[in-house]
Amino acid sequence: MTNGRLFVLSGPSGVGKSTVVQEVMRRHPNLRFSVSVTTREKRPNEVDGENYYFVTREQFQQMLDRGELLEHAEYVGNCYGTPEGPIQQQLEQGFDILLDVEPCGAMQVRSNREDAVLIFMAAPSFAEIERRLRGRGDTPDDKIAGRLERARWEYAQASQYDYIVINDHVQHAANEIQAIMEAEKCRAQLRLDYLKEDN
Amino acid sequence: MTNGRLFVLSGPSGVGKSTVVQEVMRRHPNLRFSVSVTTREKRPNEVDGENYYFVTREQFQQMLDRGELLEHAEYVGNCYGTPEGPIQQQLEQGFDILLDVEPCGAMQVRSNREDAVLIFMAAPSFAEIERRLRGRGDTPDDKIAGRLERARWEYAQASQYDYIVINDHVQHAANEIQAIMEAEKCRAQLRLDYLKEDN
Repeated sequence: MTNGRLFVLSGPSGVGKSTVVQEVMRRHPNLRFSVSVTTREKRPNEVDGENYYFVTREQFQQMLDRGELLEHAEYVGNCYGTPEGPIQQQLEQGFDILLDVEPCGAMQVRSNREDAVLIFMAAPSFAEIERRLRGRGDTPDDKIAGRLERARWEYAQASQYDYIVINDHVQHAANEIQAIMEAEKCRAQLRLDYLKEDN
Repeated sequence: MTNGRLFVLSGPSGVGKSTVVQEVMRRHPNLRFSVSVTTREKRPNEVDGENYYFVTREQFQQMLDRGELLEHAEYVGNCYGTPEGPIQQQLEQGFDILLDVEPCGAMQVRSNREDAVLIFMAAPSFAEIERRLRGRGDTPDDKIAGRLERARWEYAQASQYDYIVINDHVQHAANEIQAIMEAEKCRAQLRLDYLKEDN
């Protein structure tokens, strides 16, 4: 059986990533979403091992020291990271993995695994990001400017990605991600063994 | 408008390439098949500029001297080559181009244009190539061994390609080529300008 592939998706807040991810997951039963570890407290509706692996700061530090995290970061006093073990296991079982991280995390993944495929999601226009941020109503007005500045910084990182997908329409963006996933399974380096064993 | 992309397809005789190419062309109205120049004589059913551009040896040599050919080769006393001019023009008009050449030609294209995407088509098994060569009845028995030896050599070049598509079924192989074409349109380097102009 062929190993799966690791796909890393980034894109600024307001770009519509989660809706596209849902559609991609729906179409691609062989795709697993990577579960992060975090030191933040579990919320009542969350399930350990499903939303996150919940760990103590000490456990997190141990994972970091043992080099078990593909990438990690700290936000508002809590640590978040991507454990490589479960990912490697699922890849070997033939599952593809989708990892949703921001650009710093994506670059850490790239430096740890050159087999990772990096996809950046952009909005059809930058004005659309602002419109969506305001429209969805979960970002206070005084935080919009900060989000947009952050989005501009994320856009500036896009050149370090393999692909850029433009989310002008959920189905269209999902089509592009699906094509990328299918194409990356055809990479010559992955199929050479098949040819060699055969003749 | 976005420029088109140049796709180069190789695959040994008997791999079923032409049927897959037909299916890909049928699905992809924006894809143009590259027309070669040749010094061989025009056959009655052939149309100049459609099957080939028919040229004299002198004209061919001039094109070669002026660096107008993306790749060229000689077979049984006739010269064949791929003129870059019409390809460049169509790419700028937004058409994708499919170029069907054997591995030496593909490597010449690669060295001339690093934007070319190289796809190698393999059979589901090597035995299948022999079965197809014998089955289609246009290859005399005493030439089968030579064709198979040639196919083995072509297989050995596959590592120099970007992608390997396995033709286990026409529709499946066409799906893979279509995914590769769609994914290659999402290459970050091609879409960076779009992001830059926008914010």
